[in-house]
Amino acid sequence: MRDVISILDFSKNYILDIFEHTDEFLEGKFRPRLDNKIIAMAFFEPSTRTALSFSSAALALGAKVLGFSSEESLSVSKGENLADTIRMLENYSDCIVMRHKFDGAAKFAAEIASKPVINAGDGKREHPTQTMIDIYTVYKTFGSIEGLTFGFFGDLRYARTVNSMLKALTLFNPKMVYLISPQPLRVRSEILEGLNYPYREVSDIREVIGEIDVLYVTRIQRERFLDEDEYEKVKESYKVDVKTVEGMRKDAIILHPLPRVSEIDRRIDSMPQAKYFLQASYATPLRSVLLHEVVEGD
Amino acid sequence: MRDVISILDFSKNYILDIFEHTDEFLEGKFRPRLDNKIIAMAFFEPSTRTALSFSSAALALGAKVLGFSSEESLSVSKGENLADTIRMLENYSDCIVMRHKFDGAAKFAAEIASKPVINAGDGKREHPTQTMIDIYTVYKTFGSIEGLTFGFFGDLRYARTVNSMLKALTLFNPKMVYLISPQPLRVRSEILEGLNYPYREVSDIREVIGEIDVLYVTRIQRERFLDEDEYEKVKESYKVDVKTVEGMRKDAIILHPLPRVSEIDRRIDSMPQAKYFLQASYATPLRSVLLHEVVEGD
Amino acid sequence: MRDVISILDFSKNYILDIFEHTDEFLEGKFRPRLDNKIIAMAFFEPSTRTALSFSSAALALGAKVLGFSSEESLSVSKGENLADTIRMLENYSDCIVMRHKFDGAAKFAAEIASKPVINAGDGKREHPTQTMIDIYTVYKTFGSIEGLTFGFFGDLRYARTVNSMLKALTLFNPKMVYLISPQPLRVRSEILEGLNYPYREVSDIREVIGEIDVLYVTRIQRERFLDEDEYEKVKESYKVDVKTVEGMRKDAIILHPLPRVSEIDRRIDSMPQAKYFLQASYATPLRSVLLHEVVEGD
Repeated sequence: MRDVISILDFSKNYILDIFEHTDEFLEGKFRPRLDNKIIAMAFFEPSTRTALSFSSAALALGAKVLGFSSEESLSVSKGENLADTIRMLENYSDCIVMRHKFDGAAKFAAEIASKPVINAGDGKREHPTQTMIDIYTVYKTFGSIEGLTFGFFGDLRYARTVNSMLKALTLFNPKMVYLISPQPLRVRSEILEGLNYPYREVSDIREVIGEIDVLYVTRIQRERFLDEDEYEKVKESYKVDVKTVEGMRKDAIILHPLPRVSEIDRRIDSMPQAKYFLQASYATPLRSVLLHEVVEGD
Repeated sequence: MRDVISILDFSKNYILDIFEHTDEFLEGKFRPRLDNKIIAMAFFEPSTRTALSFSSAALALGAKVLGFSSEESLSVSKGENLADTIRMLENYSDCIVMRHKFDGAAKFAAEIASKPVINAGDGKREHPTQTMIDIYTVYKTFGSIEGLTFGFFGDLRYARTVNSMLKALTLFNPKMVYLISPQPLRVRSEILEGLNYPYREVSDIREVIGEIDVLYVTRIQRERFLDEDEYEKVKESYKVDVKTVEGMRKDAIILHPLPRVSEIDRRIDSMPQAKYFLQASYATPLRSVLLHEVVEGD
Repeated sequence: MRDVISILDFSKNYILDIFEHTDEFLEGKFRPRLDNKIIAMAFFEPSTRTALSFSSAALALGAKVLGFSSEESLSVSKGENLADTIRMLENYSDCIVMRHKFDGAAKFAAEIASKPVINAGDGKREHPTQTMIDIYTVYKTFGSIEGLTFGFFGDLRYARTVNSMLKALTLFNPKMVYLISPQPLRVRSEILEGLNYPYREVSDIREVIGEIDVLYVTRIQRERFLDEDEYEKVKESYKVDVKTVEGMRKDAIILHPLPRVSEIDRRIDSMPQAKYFLQASYATPLRSVLLHEVVEGD
């Protein structure tokens, strides 16, 4: 099993192994190579940030990269079915990193392909490598992931990074998870049903801010709203500002999968709780380790 | 002569040499390298499949790849003439792989450039490397290309792969070639005039299906029809379905340059005659061999 | 100081050092390497020519390349601020080559980034590497840059290559600089104020053509004109034709940053004064030398 489709495909031990290898990679003690391998960046939906991060991760290993950044130039637009497109990509590469707008597209691709498939985001469902990066940042900061209190803040309905992270935490015994969102952006019930830890849905972050170790902020995406007015209203009330951070514990951390728009005030960037740029800096090394594991893993 | 413009630029022996090298390449006995060479993918017209295949072929040789995937971002759109654009590309690369919407564009580029030019499709005219891949699949299946009966099915007027293949067969003494298409999509007369083997134009595939060794299917492209109704009518009557295949000889093969839309029923994919995915798998190795020959050839 | 933002960031000696290294690079005596380095092509504004040139320059050093070719697919379009985008790029690369439509964008990026930033064109302001290529062509032709008479012809207002070159000449004591343009496209006053050499604004090239050593022609860009009629009128009167060249000194040269549309008659391409294709051929080697200097420089 070498595909990376859902964070729940992995055991806690596997994830911790990846983290240890990432530690070693960052310290220069682990120097994996993928010379002569070709990694396909199959971005059926544009995501320059994720595509660049995976590309950088692959190039750092000596691998080569090819691919596409949108569906438009693809034969899909001529009516080709996804299975045929995946078969094509297999001929050109040793591993397919795939972003797609449909839930479950990566799983479908993995069933077709004999080469490993890495899910780089499928619809609103999952983004497992982002979740590894997120948890790795927690692990680096606190030395452990167990027993912490998490707050998820913003769009908890459509943000696949939140979905993936909530699933991942089932492996790590959180003390408490606060789900802080406006009513229409609450976590979907099928996700809540899978949780094995205490959680509480909250509307006002001020109620719980003092208890939180890890505040995970997500962008409330304009494209999720049919009604522009509703978007503007919600956007304003779900911002992290200096006052919010002053209410936090001194050793608490703020994470964000980026890009950040206005949901975190820029003045917070220099405050000690702000770890989202550190978190972003772990993306490429962790993906290097994972790519190597997936393509060359035993 | 190191450009690859038309399949008729090559002798039968040259083509068979490429095939033998491709055999050796697939067996790992021939390991050509193009380290430190840069291959330009000059796709004035988008074709992700062909661009990825050539890119993969170049990367497999250790070459580097750069280029563009449409005319839009190019200075052509500011009014630059093609000759100047080709001169630019020469400065940046050791070989230019070129797709263009105009008939004869590749030949024109080859006359300007001192670096080798490979035609990756020019208008409705030719696509010589696809033809080599197509014939190579015949060669791998039957051990020889001579004396076979071919059926070309679908759009024989605008499909450059058919044009190239019909020309190529003048080197290989086919027993018979059936040209099976609707009236408005028949082979153009200037192509027919160049043929040196027996052929017959047919409207109904059922008349000849039992005689065919190689059935070459092409997509009837929506964009070739001004009238949507006519497209829909023709599309329906030029499909390969299970019944069609049941009428074929057991050792006959079905080829298709892909992408396939609905012109071949997906249930056929698992039938022994279906060789189009095998055919697709030969694209990158054969192009690796050809790129090496073109750039480093004696 | 390893950023390349303005040509005036460099001393005359630094520029001459780059030129000597480029000489050696072209002769095969200097073989710089950037193996294992990743160069980001951050083209917020499309410029295929410049992006390909820098990519080719980086690949020739053994470096790897990633990036994007327009702002559209970028998180900027989701509302991300440029600072965050630059921080992202830093995580993925060892050097950022940046084209942006806003004046000063490269300088801003360089202040954010701890990795070197190379300005590949910012708004109407500068394009310092193009200027180095331009001056290098003068240096190669005349053996020196000092004491020559220059004529700048065409759009002197919006062409950033002209702005950069006029600034650069403050280091090289030109004998005279003729600024030949239509009234609405004259050099902006803030540029003129910085010049330390004799110059004269001229409307009719015939007045001065016999004195010029280096005629630098720029395209009058349609997109700079609100009024199509005015564009057409100006375009016609600012062309270099055979008659113009016949009025030039035999050892004079014509430069053009390309792409060229109709502002230089194609019949001139084969005349000895035409050096714009030679100039274009210097782009990649000089940028290789500069990239190496910037990334590995002492």
